[in-house]
Formats: sequence, C-alpha cells, structure tokens
Amino acid sequence: MKKIEVIQNVLEANESIAKRNQQLLDKHKVFAINIMSAPGAGKTSLILHTMSRLRAKLNIAVIEGDVASTVDAEKVQNVAKAVIQINTQNMPESCSLMAAMIEPALKELPLDDIELLLIENVGNLICPSEFTLGEHKRVVISSLPEGDDKPIKYPLIFIDAHAVIINKMDLLPYVDFDIATFRHSIAGLNPKAEIFQLSCKTGEGIEKWCSWVLKQLETNAKTIEASHTS
Amino acid sequence: MKKIEVIQNVLEANESIAKRNQQLLDKHKVFAINIMSAPGAGKTSLILHTMSRLRAKLNIAVIEGDVASTVDAEKVQNVAKAVIQINTQNMPESCSLMAAMIEPALKELPLDDIELLLIENVGNLICPSEFTLGEHKRVVISSLPEGDDKPIKYPLIFIDAHAVIINKMDLLPYVDFDIATFRHSIAGLNPKAEIFQLSCKTGEGIEKWCSWVLKQLETNAKTIEASHTS
Repeated sequence: MKKIEVIQNVLEANESIAKRNQQLLDKHKVFAINIMSAPGAGKTSLILHTMSRLRAKLNIAVIEGDVASTVDAEKVQNVAKAVIQINTQNMPESCSLMAAMIEPALKELPLDDIELLLIENVGNLICPSEFTLGEHKRVVISSLPEGDDKPIKYPLIFIDAHAVIINKMDLLPYVDFDIATFRHSIAGLNPKAEIFQLSCKTGEGIEKWCSWVLKQLETNAKTIEASHTS
Repeated sequence: MKKIEVIQNVLEANESIAKRNQQLLDKHKVFAINIMSAPGAGKTSLILHTMSRLRAKLNIAVIEGDVASTVDAEKVQNVAKAVIQINTQNMPESCSLMAAMIEPALKELPLDDIELLLIENVGNLICPSEFTLGEHKRVVISSLPEGDDKPIKYPLIFIDAHAVIINKMDLLPYVDFDIATFRHSIAGLNPKAEIFQLSCKTGEGIEKWCSWVLKQLETNAKTIEASHTS
C-alpha cells in the first residue's frame, strides 16, 4: 500500500536525522530530554519546575512543540536561557515533533552555552511514540485525572520511555486512580522505566525527579568523555 | 512533496466513504455522534451516562475506537444494544478513526434496530479533526484538569464541533480553569457551538446534554423525512 511505504520512508529518514541531532548535541555536551504527554497533563509546568530548581546549576534551553499558539513558549521564556517555538499546524506531521523540525531549531540555539535541553512535544499519546528527535531520554507524563488505564490504551509511548511521571498527585482524593494498577501496567510494558509521583501544583516529588535528571546528565557526560578518550 | 499528495488522496477518499456511511445511516434512520477528546477527558463516561438516561427511549449502539485494548468496549457492552471495537494500532492511521474503519463496522451493526449510534473516537485532539466518519454531529469534550487553553492550542478540532462539553465540573475547586476564558476562546473559534458544563462523576448537567441529543436526533429525522416527501 502506497501510504504505508511513504510512512516507512518518513520513519527511516527521521531516524537518520535524529542520529545527526544527537551527534550535534553530544559534540556540544548538551543533554536533551523529550517530554511527552496527553494535552494538559503538565509538560509546561514540569519544565517550569525543573528550570526553577536546576537553573542555579545548569544553563537550560527549551524547545516548545505545539500545533498552534505560543502560549507555552511565553510561559518559559523568562526562565530559560533560550526558547524556540515550533508550530506543527502546517507541517507534514502535525501531531508530533519530528527530528527534521528539531534540526533547524538546534542551529538557532546557543549550544555551547547550554547543558540541558528540555523538548516539550505536542500534546499527544500516539504520534510522538513513532518519532525520536535525537534526545537522550524520553519521558512520559500521565496525570491522575486521565485515569489509570492509559498504559493499557496507549502502550507504545510507554514501552520505550526512560521515565514515567505520575503528575497531579494533589488530586488523588478527588479522582478514581489506582496508583498500584498504573505501576503494575508500566512494570508489565517497560520494567526498566523509572516512575516518579509528583505534583506540579504543590511541588511534592519534584526534587527526586530533578535529582534523576542531574544524574542522567552526568552519566551521559561521562559516557561521551570515555568514548573520546578510548 | 510526495507525502502531502498521498495525505490529500487519503483525505479525499475519506470524505467520499464518509458520505456513503451517512447515506447508509440515514436510510436506516440512525443518528450518529462522533465523540472526540484528549485521553482521559471522559468519552466513555459520557457514553455510559447518555445510554443510561436515553435507553428507555432509544436503542443505542456504540463504536469504540482505541489504539489498543478493549477496556472501553467492555465497560459499555452491558448497556448498549450492540458494540463494535475498532483497534487502530496496526492500521494506516492509528491516531484517529477514519470513515473506512466505520464502513465495515456499520455492516456488523443491526442498523434497523438502532436509533442512536455513539462513536467514541481515539483519545486525541489533533488527528480526529481531519477525518469525518459519516456522523451527523461532532462533539468535543474538554475536561477541567486539562486547562482552559486547549481551544487555543488545538483549534482545528473545536472549529467544526457542533457541541463542546466541559467535563469534570466537580473538580473546579481543585484546578486552575477559568470557565469564562474557555467559553470566550470557543466563541472566537466557533460561535455556533453549543457548550455544556457537566460532571460525569456527579451527573450534574447530563440531563441538558441528553435533551440536546434527543432534539438533534428528532430534527435530523424530520429533515430526512422531508427530503423523501419533497
């Protein structure tokens, strides 16, 4: 079928651009995280919390992916070292960022002055699972009001996530969400994924998440250094 | 660009199958509603409430669209006259139902014994806006925890909705959501859209929504009848 062939070509092209993006990031010692979730699960809030806690230690840039609007970019622009907005509305793939959209954005960023790049993907639990961007870690946020069945209904995005965040823990008394059920589903799909429970409203759990980010960044830096000296 | 051409062909083919679907539905006097939202906004809960309130008056069937799993179909199967599950995971378009997926489903349904067909689309605020299915009315659910900026960030799906539902009104004291801001955004994009505020948890507002459904169904039946006699 013609359309499937075309999609296959798009995915292969995406892989090769993503590799190039990661090489560029590694060359400049920039650690990149791809943050994915359904609309309204808290990607921008997580980015704001992460920046406010880590900005004393790291220079942080943000790439904001949205179908339309610049509202998220406006929220982060005073805190980030640099912000690039990507609007996907008129692009061939509007429901996800793709490596080919990140490539020109990286050229706009002052990579030598940045240690951490947070990429906020388009709000979607389906399309972003198909496209790597060149990121070092993939993170999926689920929020309590969405319900504990999301890993069963949208398995692909959870299967290759390095970390899964359960956000809006402050709403636990008011919604039907069984933490054990959710954790059990993640363990079945992706037992290596780190799971963080936090609330971007109260700040609960943010510190643990930020420690993990720092640790991943340091580990990645050591790996790159080792590969240069070997 | 090859991919864009292919997408254009897919969209045109979809339109023509959607028309065929609607002709079949009209022939059998079945009124169909396409229910769209982000993951976890309450599509299944709305369907359950609608069935429980209208089943004494109408025979209702449900088509459940999901990437994977049958959990939603299982929830509705005891209440609906008939249920068809469509899993999109291995289909050419996994992030939305398409008219070509609905066509074989309609053949499986006892159309002569049904007055109302509720179609639960895949949880996504982007892809479903591109594909009509043959439905008579398009409904988008936004839920309070997602935030009041969703119409600005995902305008296309709201632009051609006949009704917009604000769900999870019971969470209003616990989340930051300004009803006036949301309503203002909808009025800007689509001033004709009916807006319903409701809670599938408490049942608040469900009656008004169901009255609207009944009225739309009756109006549609009269239109079809008039076109036959004219």
